[in-house]
Amino acid sequence: MEVYFPKVTIIGVGLIGGSMAMAMKEKEMTEKIIGIGRGLENLKMAKELGAIDLYTRDYREGLDGADLIVLATPVRTIIEIMSHLPPFLKEEVLITDVGSVKAKIVEEAERVFHGKHSFVGSHPIAGSEKSGVSASSPKIFQGKKCIITPTDKTNDMALKKVKTLWEMLGAEIVIMDIEEHDMVFGAVSHLPHVVAYALVNTVEGLRDLKDDILHYAAGGFKDSTRIASSSPEMWRDICLLNRDILLDLLTKYQIRLEEIKRKMEKHDGEGLFEEFFKAKRIRDELYAQRRN
Amino acid sequence: MEVYFPKVTIIGVGLIGGSMAMAMKEKEMTEKIIGIGRGLENLKMAKELGAIDLYTRDYREGLDGADLIVLATPVRTIIEIMSHLPPFLKEEVLITDVGSVKAKIVEEAERVFHGKHSFVGSHPIAGSEKSGVSASSPKIFQGKKCIITPTDKTNDMALKKVKTLWEMLGAEIVIMDIEEHDMVFGAVSHLPHVVAYALVNTVEGLRDLKDDILHYAAGGFKDSTRIASSSPEMWRDICLLNRDILLDLLTKYQIRLEEIKRKMEKHDGEGLFEEFFKAKRIRDELYAQRRN
Repeated sequence: MEVYFPKVTIIGVGLIGGSMAMAMKEKEMTEKIIGIGRGLENLKMAKELGAIDLYTRDYREGLDGADLIVLATPVRTIIEIMSHLPPFLKEEVLITDVGSVKAKIVEEAERVFHGKHSFVGSHPIAGSEKSGVSASSPKIFQGKKCIITPTDKTNDMALKKVKTLWEMLGAEIVIMDIEEHDMVFGAVSHLPHVVAYALVNTVEGLRDLKDDILHYAAGGFKDSTRIASSSPEMWRDICLLNRDILLDLLTKYQIRLEEIKRKMEKHDGEGLFEEFFKAKRIRDELYAQRRN
Repeated sequence: MEVYFPKVTIIGVGLIGGSMAMAMKEKEMTEKIIGIGRGLENLKMAKELGAIDLYTRDYREGLDGADLIVLATPVRTIIEIMSHLPPFLKEEVLITDVGSVKAKIVEEAERVFHGKHSFVGSHPIAGSEKSGVSASSPKIFQGKKCIITPTDKTNDMALKKVKTLWEMLGAEIVIMDIEEHDMVFGAVSHLPHVVAYALVNTVEGLRDLKDDILHYAAGGFKDSTRIASSSPEMWRDICLLNRDILLDLLTKYQIRLEEIKRKMEKHDGEGLFEEFFKAKRIRDELYAQRRN
């Protein structure tokens, strides 16, 4: 199966939206791509880079006649804009999003679109600490997972089309329940981001004691805080939208930290060794099997 | 100034001890290097790799006539072995260590050696998650900092020799107070390691809910947990030896995590944005200026 969408509208032409546009053009999956966004400079650059053909900040103009709409803004913005879209949509339009949180987005999408237009939630695992269309590339989805989160209400044909869209962009499709998605990515992605942001700010807070403390940071600190260079706006939104699950995960993480502190206090070398040995074994196994 | 040590004994021929041996041979700074260690396989490999000329597990034999002794075992072992060394040492020997914790080691060294033999503490910032002599290379110190921690009791000539030794191996020397060293590296190195170990074990703990959860970990998780692949023995020792400072840093880190949770609970988007924006700015600045 192949899909073709004569007119595509991408709302939020950042790293992911811009890369999707580039990849769809490369694969000749569309005739025209319209970008909608807030930042004029970024939209101009998206056009210069050949990701989009036209841009606008006017929803009526940008959505008129669209066959595929991709919601690729920070996740709270996705929630905010959805209810404003229906007046501008043609009935047969297919809508998807690329948000890192799925429950809240898919629930709102079904409230707004169900029975009128087809929506299927998706989440390509292709983000990075870089943001903006300048970091885009048509290759970023190749060999990466794309999680698709249909529900009871999802139209079968729409689901097939969204799967095919991502397959054509090179992604490996995984179908997942919305709640499961938010727990899984809460743990392997959202939690590590909060951990990294907190780590950088903890060390920064010690500059009162030693002004050039960060000067001594080496490769370990660099790698373990890389994701703290991610877009603060995007991660603020993810933290708020996946709040309950992430709060629970943070509590679990704090319990582990407390456990390590308790072992240090009790001078429990064996307990610390076991804790660290387990983590090393798990991580070594994880990355021994895989390329990325 | 140059230094030459006819006979060098390295106790603990791992990543750092092995690399020092290789680098000293490359620079022709010695005639003979003896390796002392627990693991016979590792010592054999060190000899095969040309890092050392001889190995033994007998201290009397290995230390006999040594001009330079490098203590390069995990840090608790350094503390444990020092008091056993004096009977085997010639008076003019120079002793240094490469431990990641300085206060406890330098204090014990002064108790054991002061007035008899020269000791100068050092800490080359050249570690990695890899361990063992198989990961050694004579180049690992080039362009890296080496912290040297003299005290009031340190012999000036011994200090000059240790500085020269590290300079000849390509390191950039930084002189630091022992307490300051342990706070600085507690923050930029020991704390991130504990954070990473705890993060891996938190996600592992969720396998009850989703058995293949780690399968979804992407680049962010990989980088932020790289240092959780480090030697559990080495990090157990560091946690125990820098315990008081690290417990205090962990408490500061927990306060930051609590602050982020509180902002999430209050749905304080502005507060979260500020927290994340600050971390991003600091980290971007830090790595924009530097190569490594």
